[in-house]
Formats: sequence, C-alpha cells, structure tokens
Amino acid sequence: MAKGLPKRSEDYSQWYNELVKKADLAEHSSVRGCMVIKPYGFSIWEKMQAALDKMFKDTGHSNAYFPLFVPKNLFEAEEKNAEGFAKECAVVTHYRLKNDPDNKGKLIVDPEAKLEEELVVRPTSEAVIWSTYKNWIQSYRDLPLLINQWANVVRWEMRTRLFLRTAEFLWQEGHTAHSSKAEAVAETKQMLEVYADFAERFMALPVVKGVKSESERFAGAEDTYCIEALMQDGKALQAGTSHFLGQNFAKAFDVKFAGKDGKEEYVWGTSWGVSTRLMGALIMAHSDDEGLVIPPKLAPIQTVIVPIFKGEEQLNQISEVAQKLKTELQADDISVKFDDRDTSSPGWKFAEYELKGVPVRVAIGPRDLENGTVEIARRDTKEKKVIPLSEAAQHIKNLMTEIQENIYKRALDFRTDNTTEVDSYAEFKKVLDEKAGFVMAHWDGTPETEEKIKEETKATIRCIPLDFKEEEGKCIYSGNPSKGKVMFARAY
Amino acid sequence: MAKGLPKRSEDYSQWYNELVKKADLAEHSSVRGCMVIKPYGFSIWEKMQAALDKMFKDTGHSNAYFPLFVPKNLFEAEEKNAEGFAKECAVVTHYRLKNDPDNKGKLIVDPEAKLEEELVVRPTSEAVIWSTYKNWIQSYRDLPLLINQWANVVRWEMRTRLFLRTAEFLWQEGHTAHSSKAEAVAETKQMLEVYADFAERFMALPVVKGVKSESERFAGAEDTYCIEALMQDGKALQAGTSHFLGQNFAKAFDVKFAGKDGKEEYVWGTSWGVSTRLMGALIMAHSDDEGLVIPPKLAPIQTVIVPIFKGEEQLNQISEVAQKLKTELQADDISVKFDDRDTSSPGWKFAEYELKGVPVRVAIGPRDLENGTVEIARRDTKEKKVIPLSEAAQHIKNLMTEIQENIYKRALDFRTDNTTEVDSYAEFKKVLDEKAGFVMAHWDGTPETEEKIKEETKATIRCIPLDFKEEEGKCIYSGNPSKGKVMFARAY
Ligand SMILES: [Zn+2]
Ligand SMILES: [Zn+2]
Repeated sequence: MAKGLPKRSEDYSQWYNELVKKADLAEHSSVRGCMVIKPYGFSIWEKMQAALDKMFKDTGHSNAYFPLFVPKNLFEAEEKNAEGFAKECAVVTHYRLKNDPDNKGKLIVDPEAKLEEELVVRPTSEAVIWSTYKNWIQSYRDLPLLINQWANVVRWEMRTRLFLRTAEFLWQEGHTAHSSKAEAVAETKQMLEVYADFAERFMALPVVKGVKSESERFAGAEDTYCIEALMQDGKALQAGTSHFLGQNFAKAFDVKFAGKDGKEEYVWGTSWGVSTRLMGALIMAHSDDEGLVIPPKLAPIQTVIVPIFKGEEQLNQISEVAQKLKTELQADDISVKFDDRDTSSPGWKFAEYELKGVPVRVAIGPRDLENGTVEIARRDTKEKKVIPLSEAAQHIKNLMTEIQENIYKRALDFRTDNTTEVDSYAEFKKVLDEKAGFVMAHWDGTPETEEKIKEETKATIRCIPLDFKEEEGKCIYSGNPSKGKVMFARAY
Repeated sequence: MAKGLPKRSEDYSQWYNELVKKADLAEHSSVRGCMVIKPYGFSIWEKMQAALDKMFKDTGHSNAYFPLFVPKNLFEAEEKNAEGFAKECAVVTHYRLKNDPDNKGKLIVDPEAKLEEELVVRPTSEAVIWSTYKNWIQSYRDLPLLINQWANVVRWEMRTRLFLRTAEFLWQEGHTAHSSKAEAVAETKQMLEVYADFAERFMALPVVKGVKSESERFAGAEDTYCIEALMQDGKALQAGTSHFLGQNFAKAFDVKFAGKDGKEEYVWGTSWGVSTRLMGALIMAHSDDEGLVIPPKLAPIQTVIVPIFKGEEQLNQISEVAQKLKTELQADDISVKFDDRDTSSPGWKFAEYELKGVPVRVAIGPRDLENGTVEIARRDTKEKKVIPLSEAAQHIKNLMTEIQENIYKRALDFRTDNTTEVDSYAEFKKVLDEKAGFVMAHWDGTPETEEKIKEETKATIRCIPLDFKEEEGKCIYSGNPSKGKVMFARAY
C-alpha cells in the first residue's frame, strides 16, 4: 500500500480512479474528456486486440479502414441512427487556421476556410461504411461481406471516466452484409459468442449473454445482443454488443443485390463492437486494495523475479540463477522481467508489482541460494510458497493456468452470490439498495414500466438472457402478466 | 490484362491510380480527400505494421495512445510547428447537432454547442504529447522515454492521391525524450536505420539515407533525417523521416528534468514516422503493366494454387494433390490459397492473381496428375517451370527468398542506372527532363539557390546523403564553392 490506494469498501469509485492512474494505465489529458492510454495500460489493450483480432480472422473477417469523418448529409441518412448520436457529435466546420492579426503568435480559425458540408467525427461508422458498401455489392456473389475496423471514435460526453466513458475511445467495429435475414442473424449471434468466449477465456470474466429491451437497443438496429458483466461493487457493465441491423442501413443507403434468380433485394446487415471500456471491466472485476489483478493471458509481464541482495557479489550470484530461470520460462512463452535495479528496495518492488497486477512474483535471496530454493508468490491469492529451484519453472507454468482459472472462478462465484431472484417490487428495491448485483424479476414487457422502474430505482434491464426460462408470473411493477424473469441492475 | 490496366510507359500516373483501385487496395471515399483502405490493401499494411512494431519494440519502445484532438492553445505553443501545419488543419468548433426546424429529418450544427476553445484534429502529435511529457518527466530517472503511437492523422490537402497524399492517413509516430543531446541524436539516427532496414528487407526497396536541407526540415525540428526511394517513373519518394527536435518542444512545453547533480535542464527530443504512404512506394517501385508485384515478406497470399479441370472428378483428384501441397507449404509458414472456384476460368484466375501480385502461382492440370508434376510461375520474372510434385514445396520455399532478393536487386539496379552525377546546370536540366532519377550535383548550401532551382526545374534537394563525399566543387547554379554533391530529384 506504499502507493496509498483507497480501499474498495470505503470508496469504490475513488479506488478505481486512483488505481487506473497509479498503476500507469491511463490518465486524463489536457483535452476535455479525452484520455491518454499509458504504455502499461496500452500493452494490456494490445493483448486484448491480438486475441480478438485472431478470433475475428478465424471466423472469416478481414480488416479494412474507413474515413474518420462523416459528411453531415450521409450521417443523416439512417434517421434513427442519426438521432441517436446527433447530441454527442464533434463537428469539423473549418479546414484552416491563420495568424491572429490582433495577437502575435496566436492562431484563429480562418473564416474563409469554412466547409460547405460540415463533417461529423465518426461516433460509429455505419453511415460511412454502408455508403461504401453500395458500390461494393451488386450480386449475391459479393456476399457475405465480412469486415472489421480497429479505430478511434468520438462521442461527446459531459461526464467522463477513464476507460468507462470518454469522449474519444478506441474500439473495433465489425460491419457485415448478407444475402438473407437468417444468415445475418446467425452472424450477429456468432459474434456475441466470440465476445463471450473472449471475455471468459482471456479476461477471466463471466458474462451473461442476452438481448436488449427495445429502449436499450442500438439506434438503427432491429435487435441488440449484449454481454453483461458484474463488477465488484454490484454494478453491471455492458462489455460488448452485437447488432442485427435488418435492412435498415441497406434501405437508407440503397444497397441492393441481385439474387441467383436475378431478383433485386435489400442487403441484410450486422454490426458489433467492443472498446477500451473492456479495460475498465477488467480492472473493476478482479483487482483488490493492493492494486491490479490481471489474468495471466492478458498480463504484459507474467512473472517478475526480484533479487534480495546486499552488495554486488550477492547480486551476481542471484542473477545467475535468475537468468537461468528466466530463460527456462521464456522457452515456455512466459513473459518474464528480472528487476535487478539497485535504486529501490525489494519491499518497494513487491508493492509495485502487486499494484501492477503481475500474476507471479519470484523472490530469490541469499538463503535461497544456500538451500537451492525460491519463494513464489501468486498475485490472486497472495499465497507464498518456498519451493526447490529445480521445480520452479514447472510450478510457475502450472500457476499460469491455475491463476487464470481461479480468477475466473472467483468472479463467477461472486456473480452467483450476487444474482438474486425477486418476486415483488419491495424486495426488488431492497436488494438493489442493500446488496446490489443482478436482480432477476418479472417484467410486463412494456417500455413504460421499464422507464418507471429506471426513474424510481436507477436500475435498467440489462438484458433478456439467452437462457431465459419461460415461467408464468406477474410484473413486479404493474402486476400484469409476464412470461419470465429478465435481468435488472444498476449499471456503468 | 483482362482488367485493362494502362501501360506504365504511356501514362504512369493513370497506371498507378487504376492499379490501386483494380487490385482492391484502396479507393476514394465520399469524404473529400479521405480514402477507404480495402481489405486486400489493408492486409499488406498490417504486415508492414507487424514488422515495424516488432522492430520498434526490439529497440526498447512501447506503444501508447494520445488524444485525436489538440486544443488550439496547445497547438500554438511550438510556434514553428504550429505555423507549419496551421494551413492544413481540420478544426472542430461544435460538439452537437440538432434537428433542423425548417427541414424535417435534417440536422444542423447546434449554435449553442460552440466550443470555447477550438480543437485541431491532430496533423501530428508533438504538441499533445509534449504537454503530457511535462507531467511524466521530473528527473533523469524518468528518461529516456521511448514511446510510439499508431494513429490516424489529418492534414487538409487540396490535391489528393490514394496512399500518397490524403487528408486522413494512418501512420506511426515515435516520440522520445532524452537527458542529453548525444543520446537524442543517436536515437534519431537509430530510427532512421530501422526504417532503412525495414524498407530494404521487407519492402525490397533500396533507400538513400540522408539529412534534409534546412528548407525541407520538419517544422519544429533541428534536423530531419530521411530515407528516399526512387520510383519507376524516375521520381523520388520520401519514405520515412526521423527528426532531432533539440530542446524546441521541451522549451515550448516547459519540460525539464533534474540531472544526477540536481541541476535542472530542458529535455532533448526526437520524433519519427512512416505512414500509409509506404503503400504507394511499394506499389510504384515494383509493379508492372500486369499489376502488383509484392515482395513475399509482405504478400498476404504468398502462393496461390489454381486447378485446371473439367468436371468434378478431375477437380477432386487435383484437390487431393493441391491440399497436400498446401499443408506442406503452410508447415513452412507460407500462406497459401487454393482457388477451386468453378465460377471463373483458370485464365481469369491467372490474370487476377497477377493483378494482385501473388509471388508464386502453381497450376495443376490433368497432365500434371499423369506425370506427377506441377507448373510453377513466379510473378516477378513471369518465368514458368514444370517440376516434379515431390520437389514443389522445397522449390516454392526457395522461391520466397529468391523473389524477395530479385525484386530488391531489380530496384537497386534501376536506381543505380538512374542516379546521375552532373557538373553543370545545363546537364542537370537535361538529365531531369530526359532521364529523371536521382541527380547528384554541387550546391552552395544556401536556401536561395535551392529555391531558385526548385522554381526553375521542380527538382528539390531530396537529401544530403549520409555517405556524402567531401569533394571541392562549384555550385551548378551559383558557381559558388561547394563541399560535395547533394541529391536532387523531382519528387512525390
Ligand atoms: Zn476524472
Ligand atoms: Zn483520384
């Protein structure tokens, strides 16, 4: 606690903010609402990107790149989508600065360089991509079109939070086009499975797969599928969405294809995305009062070796052992840092690597040299063990799997403990206030009821889970008939 | 020539434009000056990125991410830099659209959502990064800071050309900070070497390393190093730059560090970048009238197998052989496509993969089945050879190296043939008009002479080569003394 992190139990929100900064993940920039992703934070994001990118390619998608700017008239074409994002658009109106005649050394916007058509900085790329697809798609032979883009997007937010809600963020957006509704729906669901698989296998984050209610749907979609994760403070976080767009964008941009029979039809679309928000989910789901807990599969440094020494001779002896162990581990594709700096103490280093969430720490001191041992500490449980040097590499290799699984199991247990079925509105409110978490409750299916519950409790329907159980019941709010329980929570 | 590409000798510029579009590399978008990088083009860029990223990491750099927007007052801080880019800045002035009251379904910029401080869309990130470094650097222990960013940037261009000059482009920009001038200069030169190495080993593109004259320097730099490549039409293309920034940005943003002796000093900086412009260089350096010629190390598909068949039974027999060969090649990390579509003819496929620059094409027909052979064609020389199937995998593996080397050698020979030393201005102009290429000539070292030569001939000093030979002479233009020949050319 050298770095003085607030405790989660005292101020979860402040704990998160401080952790993100102190662990060198990100910070606020001098640009309102925009963050700087620092090298350590970015290296975790790179690992996420690499894993996701491989999964996209393995399912047949290719990457491409589309313009940052969307001319206003294109942006307007799909009305619901435009309406949904209009209030948070950064708009480029001029293309030149000039010297301020009244103020030497200062620049002003050149009024003579005003754009005829303003450009929206993309908040999402459906408009610019579907206007391009119009030229790429003529016949069924051009379909399916399976494209992904890694990009920055901008949504002007008044209240920002590092990783969770920032004016500019990084993401990937998949945009696919299909010749049938069934194929597009299957794609939408496939990508939801890819996201869930990624969250669970790489982020060690259990997620609930489901469909959004109408009022939480992506602007311009027919259906929005999502994965929802539970954070340690009992709030939900939407970790990824996959949208079935129907023929909405095809109609807005006049994208038709000739089928095998020669008949023209509008194309069916999907889009799906995850963003640097996943960084927020990763941090909030697993970390503790000492700092980050990163699952081994996403940890930039998987094992750190810290020598405990006095004087150069001892350091030399320890270094020899450490380097050998490092080489052995690297041969097993484990990333290792040997921190032999003499400018900070072992204790300081221990705290630092705890803060940074390095899964395994190895300490080697003079007594270890004598005994042929090393001390191994795991970050997730803080358990320490002295084991023979000869077994260290294999032990650490096993730990990579064990820690990954344990972090997942811990998060899953937490979610199980914090998912509550309720049968009345009173119980619903009591659980939300006293326990939080996911709350399963009957709902009459109307946006009106959903809105009232949101107003009164700040809880929203996170999703109608894919494993929804049909069950006759009464809406907790209206008392009207309901066909099964849906998942509510307060959310990020 | 199924696709009807113009000949290089007839209209090089049109040949380039058509090739970029027909080979599915990129196209103009509906956004003025912005391009769409299509999946095939993007997959080449991804290969470039992966190779460069590894080289940056191997030299100790980490990736990070900084905001897209630069507040105008930050942008102004380094005056030369601001001046250099002010005329081509996209400027965000508003953060919201609203419904047009006079025009249902249309949106207008909301005049009430005007930003107090306008935001410049980054044309380069020195300003935003050095304003951040101010908080990251206090002491010599924080240095060196070795950071790279992969990002999009915007420079408003009136005349654009796919890959070569676009309003938005993709690039990487390295930004490093050091405690001494010597270290910063060494970094600048190291990154130039990295770029040259990448160009030569991966792009098969010989480059001349050198220093820019004062008037071609990056705005805000003390020295700009560059690599210059020669295109087939005899024009030069600047393929990468590495800038020694001195203490200019440190002073502009007040970035100081306390040395070991406790004394405060301004930090020394560098920045360096390459962009999607490299795609243009790759295409123009190697390709021919039939289409792209891609060096194997950057080819998304390294080998294509085309079956020549009549009917399903023949296809099945050929497929068996092809799949086995494919598996063998993949085991050697060669990417292979087996194109067994029956919707297009072998001849159409041959032309298509020539256009796409696939380095090796294997054709397998019924006679090959009988004889136990395959026909192998290389894209660079168009040489065809029938060889025993049993030797095919090894032969193709060897071809990967041979083709890579041959493409490089061909470009190097071309450059040698098209580098001319001249001793008079008359000769200089004659060579430029009749032969083009790199022209080595004495120059008196003044910006005035440089400017005059540029006005009269459109040739610029590409660089003073690092292997500059000291040699007494007279400036071809002014007749004043010169210490050696510098490299001129007309350039992209
Ligand atoms: Zn904040
Ligand atoms: Zn054009």
